[in-house]
Amino acid sequence: MATKHDKPKVGEAPAQQDTSPAVMALPLPPGTLSAENQAYFDKCLEKLGFVPNVLVSYAHDDAKLSAFATVYNDLMLAPSGLSKLEREMIAVAVSSVNRCYYCLTAHGAAVRQLSGDPVLGELMVMNYRAAELSVRHRAMLDFAVKLTETPHLIGEADREGLRKAGFGERDIWDVGAVAAFFNMSNRMASAVDMRPNAEYHGQAR
Amino acid sequence: MATKHDKPKVGEAPAQQDTSPAVMALPLPPGTLSAENQAYFDKCLEKLGFVPNVLVSYAHDDAKLSAFATVYNDLMLAPSGLSKLEREMIAVAVSSVNRCYYCLTAHGAAVRQLSGDPVLGELMVMNYRAAELSVRHRAMLDFAVKLTETPHLIGEADREGLRKAGFGERDIWDVGAVAAFFNMSNRMASAVDMRPNAEYHGQAR
Amino acid sequence: MATKHDKPKVGEAPAQQDTSPAVMALPLPPGTLSAENQAYFDKCLEKLGFVPNVLVSYAHDDAKLSAFATVYNDLMLAPSGLSKLEREMIAVAVSSVNRCYYCLTAHGAAVRQLSGDPVLGELMVMNYRAAELSVRHRAMLDFAVKLTETPHLIGEADREGLRKAGFGERDIWDVGAVAAFFNMSNRMASAVDMRPNAEYHGQAR
Amino acid sequence: MATKHDKPKVGEAPAQQDTSPAVMALPLPPGTLSAENQAYFDKCLEKLGFVPNVLVSYAHDDAKLSAFATVYNDLMLAPSGLSKLEREMIAVAVSSVNRCYYCLTAHGAAVRQLSGDPVLGELMVMNYRAAELSVRHRAMLDFAVKLTETPHLIGEADREGLRKAGFGERDIWDVGAVAAFFNMSNRMASAVDMRPNAEYHGQAR
Amino acid sequence: MATKHDKPKVGEAPAQQDTSPAVMALPLPPGTLSAENQAYFDKCLEKLGFVPNVLVSYAHDDAKLSAFATVYNDLMLAPSGLSKLEREMIAVAVSSVNRCYYCLTAHGAAVRQLSGDPVLGELMVMNYRAAELSVRHRAMLDFAVKLTETPHLIGEADREGLRKAGFGERDIWDVGAVAAFFNMSNRMASAVDMRPNAEYHGQAR
Amino acid sequence: MATKHDKPKVGEAPAQQDTSPAVMALPLPPGTLSAENQAYFDKCLEKLGFVPNVLVSYAHDDAKLSAFATVYNDLMLAPSGLSKLEREMIAVAVSSVNRCYYCLTAHGAAVRQLSGDPVLGELMVMNYRAAELSVRHRAMLDFAVKLTETPHLIGEADREGLRKAGFGERDIWDVGAVAAFFNMSNRMASAVDMRPNAEYHGQAR
Repeated sequence: MATKHDKPKVGEAPAQQDTSPAVMALPLPPGTLSAENQAYFDKCLEKLGFVPNVLVSYAHDDAKLSAFATVYNDLMLAPSGLSKLEREMIAVAVSSVNRCYYCLTAHGAAVRQLSGDPVLGELMVMNYRAAELSVRHRAMLDFAVKLTETPHLIGEADREGLRKAGFGERDIWDVGAVAAFFNMSNRMASAVDMRPNAEYHGQAR
Repeated sequence: MATKHDKPKVGEAPAQQDTSPAVMALPLPPGTLSAENQAYFDKCLEKLGFVPNVLVSYAHDDAKLSAFATVYNDLMLAPSGLSKLEREMIAVAVSSVNRCYYCLTAHGAAVRQLSGDPVLGELMVMNYRAAELSVRHRAMLDFAVKLTETPHLIGEADREGLRKAGFGERDIWDVGAVAAFFNMSNRMASAVDMRPNAEYHGQAR
Repeated sequence: MATKHDKPKVGEAPAQQDTSPAVMALPLPPGTLSAENQAYFDKCLEKLGFVPNVLVSYAHDDAKLSAFATVYNDLMLAPSGLSKLEREMIAVAVSSVNRCYYCLTAHGAAVRQLSGDPVLGELMVMNYRAAELSVRHRAMLDFAVKLTETPHLIGEADREGLRKAGFGERDIWDVGAVAAFFNMSNRMASAVDMRPNAEYHGQAR
Repeated sequence: MATKHDKPKVGEAPAQQDTSPAVMALPLPPGTLSAENQAYFDKCLEKLGFVPNVLVSYAHDDAKLSAFATVYNDLMLAPSGLSKLEREMIAVAVSSVNRCYYCLTAHGAAVRQLSGDPVLGELMVMNYRAAELSVRHRAMLDFAVKLTETPHLIGEADREGLRKAGFGERDIWDVGAVAAFFNMSNRMASAVDMRPNAEYHGQAR
Repeated sequence: MATKHDKPKVGEAPAQQDTSPAVMALPLPPGTLSAENQAYFDKCLEKLGFVPNVLVSYAHDDAKLSAFATVYNDLMLAPSGLSKLEREMIAVAVSSVNRCYYCLTAHGAAVRQLSGDPVLGELMVMNYRAAELSVRHRAMLDFAVKLTETPHLIGEADREGLRKAGFGERDIWDVGAVAAFFNMSNRMASAVDMRPNAEYHGQAR
Repeated sequence: MATKHDKPKVGEAPAQQDTSPAVMALPLPPGTLSAENQAYFDKCLEKLGFVPNVLVSYAHDDAKLSAFATVYNDLMLAPSGLSKLEREMIAVAVSSVNRCYYCLTAHGAAVRQLSGDPVLGELMVMNYRAAELSVRHRAMLDFAVKLTETPHLIGEADREGLRKAGFGERDIWDVGAVAAFFNMSNRMASAVDMRPNAEYHGQAR
C-alpha cells in the first residue's frame, strides 16, 4: 500500500520486501486524482523518474493536492527577480533551521543540480554561514533565516538590508514568500513524517 | 494609494487625512484582478464590509492571490473533522507563538465570533494554556504549538497523543495543515508588515 | 466561596451557577482586612465597580495585601517622569513576553482607557514592535523587554540608549522598576493561576 | 559621593582612594530618610556592620525604600511554612537563572550562613541540580526555576507536584511569592547595575 | 601557502588556480613535525589519499597536534563497548546541533562508509530523530544531544536511561566522552573556520 | 571505595563516615596507573594536597588519563600569548554558561588564586559582564562565550574583534582552544556527575 510507513531500522533484518514505498506516517488511502493531477504525476514520472512523496502524501485529497501544487509551482517556478537556484537556496537554509529531513533531502538535491556545485548543497544543509557567499546571497539568506527563527523581530531595517543588497520591492516579497512557504512545508512534513524518495540522495553528488 | 504605509504614531499629530488604507510596507502597485478574484473581493465587501488586507496585499499579483485564496479556503472552510472554530483556535494559538499582529487581530476576531465567547478569543491570543479546555482542544493546541516551536521534535508519540484524544488520521493531517499554514501566513505578514483592517478590533467584543 | 476556581470549559454545559467569582487556583480563605485595606476595597468598588482579583488573591493575608498595594500604587500612580500611560505600556509589553493572562487583560484595558486608543492596547498585547511608536516609546519598551528576557545582558549601553531618547537618571530607574515589578507580578499570577475580572475584557474597546 | 560607580578594572592601578562606596550606575542623590528608615539603616549597621547596597540604592526616594523594605521583610522574615533558609535557597536559585551578580552575592552569603554549609551556598549559585537535595527541596526549587524561566508553562500539575512533596496551599503561595520577588529584584539590580557590598564575599566560607 | 583561506564565492569567476588547499581562517605557518607526526601524516596520505584538514590546522604546533591526535585516536579507535559506527553516529548528531560544517562533512562521510548506508549518514546530519533507530541507538543519541544542548540538566535519570537501553558503566563514560569531545572539536573548527577536505563530499554516496 | 557517590543530603543525618571521597556517579574501578601518571598524582598530592577528582575519574583507564592530562597541560600551562589567569578566566566564564559545578568550583578557585582577587573569581562564576574588565578581557570573554552558546554564528567579524583588541593569530587559536576545551570538560563532568574536591571551596577567599 502506497502509504505504508516502512523505514528500515539500523541493524535489523528487513522484513520481506514490501513493494510499496514508505511515504508518511498517516495511513490515509489515496484519493482519486483529477485529470490535471494525473497529468502532473505522469509528468513527474517522465521527467524525474518518480513522483515526489510530498505529492503522494497530499494525494489523499485531490483538492488539497491541487492547492498545494498551485502555490508551490507559482512560488518556485514562476518568473521572479530571484533565480530558481536562489529560491532553492532559501528553501534549504530555512529547512535547516527547522531540521526537516524531507525538505533538506529533496531541495538539497535541487541546489546541487541547479548550481552544479555539490558542496554548495551541503553548505545550505549544514550551515549557510560557512559558505563564502556574495553580499546578495548572504543578505537573502540572513533575512530568510531571521524570518524563520524570530518572525516577530523582522522590521523595516531588515527590509532595508535587502534593498541595500540590490533587491527590489517585488523581490522582497518573493524572498519572504519562499521562506514563509517552507516554514509551512517543513511543518507539514514533520507533522505526518513524510519520507523523501530514495532517488534524491545520490543526485548530483 | 492603496498600499501606502500610514500608521499613526502615538502622541503625534496626524498628517492630513489620507483616504487610502495602510496595507503593508511594500509599495507594490495593485495588479489587475481576474474576474474570479474580483468576484471574491466583491463578496468580501458584501459579507464583511471590507476586503481583508491580506488579500489586498496579495493582489499585486493575481496568480499569487488565487493560489493563496485556494489554499486558505480549502483549509479553513472545506469539510473537515475539525470545526471552523477549532481551525480558528489553532490559527490564533500559532500566531501567538509567532507574535503576528495581523493574524492575531483577524483570527482573534474569528474565534470571538464563531464561539460567541469574547474571552476565549483573548485566551487564544494571550496564552491558550490559561484557558480551561476540553482534553480534545488541549491536545489539539499542544500539538499545533509544538509543531510551531520545535517541528523537529514532533514524533509518533505526538500523533498518538492526538489519536488518544479522539482525532482520526485525517484529522491529524488537518491539525498539522492548519498549524503549518499559519506558520507560513504569520511570516508572510511579518515579512511585509501587513496591517489588519481596523474593523476587526471591535468585532464580537 | 470566593476563592473557588471555576472556569467554564469550552463546549461543556456549565455546572449550576456558582455565585462566587473564580479568583485563583489556591483555596486560601480570605483574611480579615484592616480598616485601611477595607477602605481600599471600598474605593475600588466605587470607582471600578469591582475589586481587582489580584487584590482579592492577596487578601488571604492582610500584611501581604498592604505590602503589595503600597509598592504597586507607588510605582504606577506616584509622580514620575513617565506618564501613567507609559507605565501601563511597559506593564503590557512585559506581560506579553511572559504571556501572563491576568496582567495582559487588566493592563491591556488600562492602556486602552488611558490612551483612548483600543488598537494601541492590542498592539502592546500582541507585539509592540508592530506599533509605530515614537523614538522615546520604542527605546522605553526595548529596554523593558530586554530586561525581561535577558536581564544578565543589560549594560551601560542600554542605559545610554534611554538617555539618548531623552530619559533622565530617575526616569531610567522608573522604567527599570516598572518592568521589574511586572516580572514579579506576572509570575505571582502564573504561580497561583489568578483569573482576571470579567469586566476588563469589554472596557474601552 | 555615595552613588559614584567606581569598580576597579582588572590589572589597572586604582585611582586615589575614593571614600564613597560604589553602589549603582545611576548618579541619583540620596533622599532624606524618614525616621523609620533611618532607624532601619542604623539597625543594619549595628547588626551587619554595613547597609546593604540595595537599600542605599532605593534611598534616593524614601517612599520607594519603605515600600521595598516592607515587601522584602514580609517575604523573607515573616512566619511561613518555609524556613528562612528555604526562602534564601529559592532566592539564589532564581538569581542564578537570571545571573544577577548582586543577589547571588548577597543571598549566596545568606545560604552559607543560615545552613552553616558553605558548599550548599555554592551549589545554589552554580547549579542547584548538582546538589543532593531532599525531595521537598528539589520540588521547591524546580517550581521556582520553572516559574522563572517559563512562567507561561506553569499549570495545575506543577502545583500538584508541590502538594505531593508536602507543601500546603499557603506554602505554594510562598514558594511562588519568593521566586516572583527575586525575578523583580534581579531585574532592578541589573537595570541600575547595583554592586554588592564587599563584606558579603568572605562571609561564612 | 597551506593555510590560505580560499573559498570560491558562488557566481564569481575563480581567481587563478591556487595550488594550496584552503584549511582555516588563521594564517598560522606550519610548524616542524616530529617524526611521529610526520609518520601519521604519511599514513593518512597512504590510507585516505589526503591529510584531514583538522590535522593540518593543528600542525602549526607539533605538541598540540600530538595531544589532539592522542585524544582523538583513543576516543574513536580504541576498544570500547561502542562500535566505531556508533561513535561516528554520536559525532555527527552532536555536530548537527552545533551546525559544524567541518565535522558534519568529515564524520558524515564516516557514517556512510562504516554503515554502508548513505541515507543513515544524511539522517545523522539532518535530524537523527527522523531515523528509525533501535532503542539502543535512540537512547545513545538522545543522551549525547541532551548533553550537548543542556549539559546542566543531565542527571541520574539520564544515566539510568542508558543503563535500561543496555549500556554498561564504562559505555556510559564512552557515550559521554565522544559527545563531549565533539563539543570541543566543533567549537575549535568554528573558532578558526576549518574547511573540510573536498574528498569527503563524494565518499560513499 | 574511591568511586562511591556519597553527597550528603541537606537536612539528613549523615550515614556513618565513609573514608573515601565522592568522585563521580559511575562506579568504575580505578585502573593501574603508569609510572608517569603515578608520578603526576604524587606531584598533585605534594603541591595541592590532593589529586583533583577529574584526574581520579579518568584514572579508571590509564590511557585516557594520559591523553586528557596531555591536552589539559598543554592548553593551560604551555607558553601562550594568554596569561595563565586569562586562560582560567575563560575556563570559568565558559563553565558558567554550561553551569558546570565541578569546573566552576575548581577553576573559580584558580582565578581567585592567580589574580589574588576573590571578587574576580566570583564575577567569572556569576556573570562576567558585571565585572569592569579591560577591553582585551571583555573581547576575549565575549568571544569565548559566543563560541560556547552559538558556535555556528562565529565568523570573521568575531575574529576581527579579537584582532582589534590586540590578539594575534596564535592568540586567537588559544582563546578558541581554551573555550572549546571547557565545553568538552564541562560536559564530561556533567555526563558522569564529577564532584569537586572539598578543598577548592575555601581557597583564596
